[in-house]
Amino acid sequence: MSETIPTPSVPAPDIVRCAAMDLVVTDLEASRTFYVDLLGLHVTEEDDEAIYLRSFEEFIHHNIVLRKGPVAAVAAFAYRVRTPEDVDAAEAYYRELGCRTERRKDGFQKGFGDSVRVEDPLGFPYEFFYATEHVERLTQRYDLYSAGELVRLDHFNQVTPDVPRGRAYLEDLGFRVSEDIQDDQGVTYAAWMHRKQTVHDTALTGGDGPRMHHIAFSTHEKHNIIQICDKMGALRISDRIERGPGRHGVSNAFYLYILDPDGHRVEIYTQDYYTGDPDNPTVTWDVHDNQRRDWWGNPVVPSWYTEASLVLDLDGNPQPIVERTDSSEMAVTVGADGFSYTRAPGDAIKGEPAEEVGFKMGNQV
Amino acid sequence: MSETIPTPSVPAPDIVRCAAMDLVVTDLEASRTFYVDLLGLHVTEEDDEAIYLRSFEEFIHHNIVLRKGPVAAVAAFAYRVRTPEDVDAAEAYYRELGCRTERRKDGFQKGFGDSVRVEDPLGFPYEFFYATEHVERLTQRYDLYSAGELVRLDHFNQVTPDVPRGRAYLEDLGFRVSEDIQDDQGVTYAAWMHRKQTVHDTALTGGDGPRMHHIAFSTHEKHNIIQICDKMGALRISDRIERGPGRHGVSNAFYLYILDPDGHRVEIYTQDYYTGDPDNPTVTWDVHDNQRRDWWGNPVVPSWYTEASLVLDLDGNPQPIVERTDSSEMAVTVGADGFSYTRAPGDAIKGEPAEEVGFKMGNQV
Amino acid sequence: MSETIPTPSVPAPDIVRCAAMDLVVTDLEASRTFYVDLLGLHVTEEDDEAIYLRSFEEFIHHNIVLRKGPVAAVAAFAYRVRTPEDVDAAEAYYRELGCRTERRKDGFQKGFGDSVRVEDPLGFPYEFFYATEHVERLTQRYDLYSAGELVRLDHFNQVTPDVPRGRAYLEDLGFRVSEDIQDDQGVTYAAWMHRKQTVHDTALTGGDGPRMHHIAFSTHEKHNIIQICDKMGALRISDRIERGPGRHGVSNAFYLYILDPDGHRVEIYTQDYYTGDPDNPTVTWDVHDNQRRDWWGNPVVPSWYTEASLVLDLDGNPQPIVERTDSSEMAVTVGADGFSYTRAPGDAIKGEPAEEVGFKMGNQV
Amino acid sequence: MSETIPTPSVPAPDIVRCAAMDLVVTDLEASRTFYVDLLGLHVTEEDDEAIYLRSFEEFIHHNIVLRKGPVAAVAAFAYRVRTPEDVDAAEAYYRELGCRTERRKDGFQKGFGDSVRVEDPLGFPYEFFYATEHVERLTQRYDLYSAGELVRLDHFNQVTPDVPRGRAYLEDLGFRVSEDIQDDQGVTYAAWMHRKQTVHDTALTGGDGPRMHHIAFSTHEKHNIIQICDKMGALRISDRIERGPGRHGVSNAFYLYILDPDGHRVEIYTQDYYTGDPDNPTVTWDVHDNQRRDWWGNPVVPSWYTEASLVLDLDGNPQPIVERTDSSEMAVTVGADGFSYTRAPGDAIKGEPAEEVGFKMGNQV
Ligand SMILES: [Ca+2]
Ligand SMILES: [Fe+2]
Ligand SMILES: [Fe+2]
Ligand SMILES: [Fe+2]
Ligand SMILES: [Fe+2]
Repeated sequence: MSETIPTPSVPAPDIVRCAAMDLVVTDLEASRTFYVDLLGLHVTEEDDEAIYLRSFEEFIHHNIVLRKGPVAAVAAFAYRVRTPEDVDAAEAYYRELGCRTERRKDGFQKGFGDSVRVEDPLGFPYEFFYATEHVERLTQRYDLYSAGELVRLDHFNQVTPDVPRGRAYLEDLGFRVSEDIQDDQGVTYAAWMHRKQTVHDTALTGGDGPRMHHIAFSTHEKHNIIQICDKMGALRISDRIERGPGRHGVSNAFYLYILDPDGHRVEIYTQDYYTGDPDNPTVTWDVHDNQRRDWWGNPVVPSWYTEASLVLDLDGNPQPIVERTDSSEMAVTVGADGFSYTRAPGDAIKGEPAEEVGFKMGNQV
Repeated sequence: MSETIPTPSVPAPDIVRCAAMDLVVTDLEASRTFYVDLLGLHVTEEDDEAIYLRSFEEFIHHNIVLRKGPVAAVAAFAYRVRTPEDVDAAEAYYRELGCRTERRKDGFQKGFGDSVRVEDPLGFPYEFFYATEHVERLTQRYDLYSAGELVRLDHFNQVTPDVPRGRAYLEDLGFRVSEDIQDDQGVTYAAWMHRKQTVHDTALTGGDGPRMHHIAFSTHEKHNIIQICDKMGALRISDRIERGPGRHGVSNAFYLYILDPDGHRVEIYTQDYYTGDPDNPTVTWDVHDNQRRDWWGNPVVPSWYTEASLVLDLDGNPQPIVERTDSSEMAVTVGADGFSYTRAPGDAIKGEPAEEVGFKMGNQV
Repeated sequence: MSETIPTPSVPAPDIVRCAAMDLVVTDLEASRTFYVDLLGLHVTEEDDEAIYLRSFEEFIHHNIVLRKGPVAAVAAFAYRVRTPEDVDAAEAYYRELGCRTERRKDGFQKGFGDSVRVEDPLGFPYEFFYATEHVERLTQRYDLYSAGELVRLDHFNQVTPDVPRGRAYLEDLGFRVSEDIQDDQGVTYAAWMHRKQTVHDTALTGGDGPRMHHIAFSTHEKHNIIQICDKMGALRISDRIERGPGRHGVSNAFYLYILDPDGHRVEIYTQDYYTGDPDNPTVTWDVHDNQRRDWWGNPVVPSWYTEASLVLDLDGNPQPIVERTDSSEMAVTVGADGFSYTRAPGDAIKGEPAEEVGFKMGNQV
Repeated sequence: MSETIPTPSVPAPDIVRCAAMDLVVTDLEASRTFYVDLLGLHVTEEDDEAIYLRSFEEFIHHNIVLRKGPVAAVAAFAYRVRTPEDVDAAEAYYRELGCRTERRKDGFQKGFGDSVRVEDPLGFPYEFFYATEHVERLTQRYDLYSAGELVRLDHFNQVTPDVPRGRAYLEDLGFRVSEDIQDDQGVTYAAWMHRKQTVHDTALTGGDGPRMHHIAFSTHEKHNIIQICDKMGALRISDRIERGPGRHGVSNAFYLYILDPDGHRVEIYTQDYYTGDPDNPTVTWDVHDNQRRDWWGNPVVPSWYTEASLVLDLDGNPQPIVERTDSSEMAVTVGADGFSYTRAPGDAIKGEPAEEVGFKMGNQV
């Protein structure tokens, strides 16, 4: 699997942004409690089989569909393309790659029209569509604005064993890398890639895959994220707060990771930066920089590295998992064997070696 | 030492609030960098031996004096009393308790007048004063307002082996208990006690003592605290962020703990609640409630339980440390032996025992 | 009426804080929409005649009762006193003043016990009580926390013709003045007076009275107040935003004034400062300082100066209005005749007279 | 001048975003105080003639240059284009339009390379460049982050007599309209137009022109804008706060308008919405909707409608001003003659005509 993915001769579709996730959940009512009652996403429509939800400032039909199914998994990562013809372009592109594709003129998801779904070279179910029903954009419906309001879908995050391989494929598809994590042995641990003018529409996290690491929604301000934590405390489900809140090193965003009833990870995210210039500088982080994942040096909980959601093939069966063979970020950073630094060697305040203080996690337990 | 402290026959002084700490530091320049350059406290005056600092909305001379000395320690916890005569009352009160006292008509700290210092029954150096030089209150000097501005001194926190003994003594002194942590064996782990109309002016934390656990300053809003974290990240001193930010269960405040160059712990704190009514309800937390210390269930780092600063006697020598004999909060809550819950037994969402999910710390490393 | 109010020989009751307003409204349903649906106050209980509401962090029965009646007015400004005996003290105090009083062992308001109501020397219906039913304090019920949550009752504001007369009376009653507005002719335009440790529990505004100027609730942060504006925009009732949001000069609080369906004025208020020290400095503002009412120099709408609510006598009839004879703040500050300054004379940046720039209102229409 | 501007046969340059303004000021020191000391923009470089400033998250050389000159005016509105060749495209495009152009391989502004400046068909000095020196992006330099930090250049705003004419020209140039203000007579009062994925890179405001209405910088959160107001109050320059803070109807952003020492208007702006989808819905506001300019219905100060800055031709002389002949927004909305509504006719809460309440300005003096 680690041979290079060829660059097709036909042009890549013009992808606008990450737009929606088709998410299979095993208990629709429990998931509704999580996404609607807790997180306050807005129901565009729903029935016994599926709930279509959108964020506050969205005008396309939905950003996430919760679909009842036997195995918790991602059925599709859906991207919006610029024109109807870009759906044709996507189909041709993946066909040349030898990928399985399926075209549906009426769409795979309610509210979206002509779409193509593919099993991409990394094993992920990608979907491309242009046509969508416009729904009420709630931007100024402050009568509906909750204290922890989610205002936009921000990005996906995918787990894949070979990050450079996946990155090259996504760059061919038109994504541009805003940031990545590497070590001095040439190993890449993760990469952030965007189409819209933010840090990412999707990111690749090195690990056993294909799996879905998380889906991220954004809020207007940092206090909105704190309110979500406070509300989870009030509901006595703080054990579903997996990590954070914190400030990312990568992306500079303020973040929180929480777990839905099936263990699907949801990030709440705010205030990254503009990346729309053609020469937007790419930021590379050292995997041993203890502020890369949390700017305040707070430890990453191991489950965040190891757990992720299954993804489905076009028949609805879970894709088999391929192990990562490169070294894992957790192994090289957490615990006694991992060496990490707060201040880069040479940046020590007084020049004493002991000042290159290690991973704060080491102080715990 | 664990016999009860008698209630004096003379009236207790009328304490207004915690007002200032006399703090010995070993490297005055390094401490200045921390308290002035990083935290932005305002210099009332300074010389080669001491720096007098105040918070943004303060009008007394200072809230903390950094005093150069051989051993990092607290020289005094200073309280302001309501009238000049209350200094006499304090002196008489502690004399009747058999405590060593020292009266100085010109004060122990620059900018404060007639004061008495005592070695209190718990071994802490307490100071009481009324007279103070008024200085410019910076409340509307928004030209000096930094993004992480500290606007008030909020409270002290003291480590003492026998919390109920200390609590009874402070109640005699006029403090009232707003919150505490207990278990069903009758052990008290901590208590929060106030004179002003907030959750506390000081708290007692069970542990080897007498030691100073932390001094706390407050900000206007939560984002001010996040900025302090972000700035520590930018300065590459995130290893001096010990715990947080988070939301306390006890007190409901948004908090952060950081460590100064000597390891003195400073809390940044905002938005607890009004406690001024005579029948303000006391909140008791179960030590096994995993949201008591962090409302989001995030783990308490062990150093937070074990580390604290020495305190000095009236000769300037460190007080000897007496071990706590009651069980320790860390031992009963952290790790495999401690049982903690997110949802109280009986509050489980579906009634399944497995739902009483344990301490999130257990998931780490 | 402008003779001095005598100081009683008996001790004043020990007032803890402003606690509740008994407010007569003409359309209970419309008022419920305003206070519950718009502002999110929490219903303790309600029936066809009255709705009892409390703020998020309150533990006494209510902070405001909306009572259906023929004339929109205030039936009582209720203060909580420190002990049951302070109700007796209040009764004796006002009797010595020759005021009409009424004692009810079962209270005037549901949820409050033994109380006395008086027609005070300024013509206001004041109520004093200690006993109250404790209700759930919602402090950590973040599942109920709205984006514009009102967390405490902060203060009352009363209109009276002769401010110094009223101020002396309230000082006798134990209130302390935190701030006031004067001119160099010795006229006092307003005074802020507190019992609890904030800028005020009530304020006196010079004007035709007795009338109720406003009742104020506080939020945790400034964005909560902005959300209330945004929500009023979304509901297309922005014409009920009378003034603000802005930053007060006096009190330094961030504020907003809105009008309920009867025209009763409600202030939303956050982040004034601590006033609990015995020598808390009193701040006096020049009536011609254009930043006194709004720190940003934004104009005060004339209705804010002229409109206010009636207050009732103990029979439930509106108190007659006595005209202010001193000059009015509006007359001396608004428009062509009023001289106001942004920079005090002598503070001009370049020393040019033209720099003492006048009232920004003059630039409008 | 009001004939239609022809669409060139050659392709328009691919504009990335508004990038920098070349601003002539008459007192460089006074302007430095305003932009650096008050607003905290970061100096990239400076000399006796010019100061180059950038926002916190910028990586190109600067966003504004303050250039000393005899007449306060705008020397150029500079846009960044996608490739070096787009500078050629811009030159060809304007030549075909018959506009005066000037090409400088070394750029007009320090830190920018090959550029073309034009006198555009509306009379504005537009500049196009790709090449720029990259400078330190301060995104995570929280040690430099002020309480009112400006993090990005957001947009320009231009005054022109004939908005539809200007809009068609900018649409040809590749801008897309996110919002506009019209009346039912077919008059357009203003239009907002974007290249990057926000509400605008520039807006056209109907009025005597060509003039520059304002330049806008954005902050992360709303409290940052409030701090700027508070700081201007502390510095006693609140008379330089012209309008706001408030919430825009158009764009939904939280805003503030302030005036620099020459009267150049600067907007501080935060939290508009994503506009990057190809079918992003255009929002049209009725000029009589009193919430269009301020969502809370607060009045627009007349100077905001009437005052604006001169713009220069390529010789550095002020462009002559052409009067608007269409009706002015101020005339049709402010004061007795203008009819405006809070609730659209038919949206009245109780269906009573009196409920269509008018302009709140009418309530003021
Ligand atoms: Ca943590
Ligand atoms: Fe993410
Ligand atoms: Fe504390
Ligand atoms: Fe008020
Ligand atoms: Fe603007």
